[in-house]
Amino acid sequence: MIFTETIKLNTKGFNDTLDITKDVNDIVKNSKIKDGLVTLMCPGSTCTITTIEFESGVIRDLQRTLEKIAPSDITYEHDLRWGDGNGFSHVRAALMKPSLSIPLLNGKLSIGTWQQIVLIDFDNRNRNRTIIVQVFGE
Amino acid sequence: MIFTETIKLNTKGFNDTLDITKDVNDIVKNSKIKDGLVTLMCPGSTCTITTIEFESGVIRDLQRTLEKIAPSDITYEHDLRWGDGNGFSHVRAALMKPSLSIPLLNGKLSIGTWQQIVLIDFDNRNRNRTIIVQVFGE
Amino acid sequence: MIFTETIKLNTKGFNDTLDITKDVNDIVKNSKIKDGLVTLMCPGSTCTITTIEFESGVIRDLQRTLEKIAPSDITYEHDLRWGDGNGFSHVRAALMKPSLSIPLLNGKLSIGTWQQIVLIDFDNRNRNRTIIVQVFGE
Repeated sequence: MIFTETIKLNTKGFNDTLDITKDVNDIVKNSKIKDGLVTLMCPGSTCTITTIEFESGVIRDLQRTLEKIAPSDITYEHDLRWGDGNGFSHVRAALMKPSLSIPLLNGKLSIGTWQQIVLIDFDNRNRNRTIIVQVFGE
Repeated sequence: MIFTETIKLNTKGFNDTLDITKDVNDIVKNSKIKDGLVTLMCPGSTCTITTIEFESGVIRDLQRTLEKIAPSDITYEHDLRWGDGNGFSHVRAALMKPSLSIPLLNGKLSIGTWQQIVLIDFDNRNRNRTIIVQVFGE
Repeated sequence: MIFTETIKLNTKGFNDTLDITKDVNDIVKNSKIKDGLVTLMCPGSTCTITTIEFESGVIRDLQRTLEKIAPSDITYEHDLRWGDGNGFSHVRAALMKPSLSIPLLNGKLSIGTWQQIVLIDFDNRNRNRTIIVQVFGE
């Protein structure tokens, strides 16, 4: 059985990090599927889905690390060509990939107690995002 | 239903980045599966599958970032032991992982308009690669 | 068909890297499933699953690279708030994500000959970990 729903979100870009765990859990519950695989996908070249302990300290720590890996204040070839100024966003998203799969066991996502599912939007402006949540199982 | 085919490619190594979106779409079409999960896997310890806007500027930006993360011109312990000189390739591949899963919705991969699926070959020489494309669904 | 088992491991933290390929293969064999998708998940915010050629040289190379990306000897906001001193562990885990999916073809995991599946524990102390191995297919 396959059950798919979407989560619609407004982000502020610039590494805006949004906790989507409750939304994912609600969709899992609606699906009536108990065991299987839950895949989350953020279509687009400037965002990712990952997990993190959702507290503001570590979220800033991650942002600082990403700023070091792909700084937002240097020039990218992408920007020279296209002028949208979000070369750093594309690089971060390609490194982190757009999707995440999590086993579903007996109706529960197999994440830890202090582990939340997040969308990170790397773009350099406000965005409307549609996240796909696919529950696949029985 | 599970449908699996492979894509065979020749790469030049050194971060050679190849757009495989059309090949993946062709396999999805052949599978006759409409809804499910498409998993792409590049067997081997020196390559990855990710998504990116496939234009030469941002591809070079990503290469430059990876060069900063795991430079190709420093010595790795792997090279001291095995002499193949591709320690940087192994490190990059372990960081980025070899596979990627994308939900398939109503016969379409859930990627954005400006988002392509790519193989990146981190090795330090020409390689023949076989990418596995598994379409799993109904 | 879905078959799920767990692997229980003790780690030393600090990037301790453990080869779990044999354990995963044993679970795949027990499942009697021949074709499908194997998903590995390490619940928790300070660990990851990836693949690497399991030899001590490249494992240290990867550790050194991660030390450069998210150093263990600088102060993180997470540490200032919570005092557990493992901000670096959280950042590394969020970057690398907690899960990995690998196609299963004719009873065999589609990994290369020199490619092993590993748990990396980024935490700053000994941990007991339970890895979920889900075999989904037919």
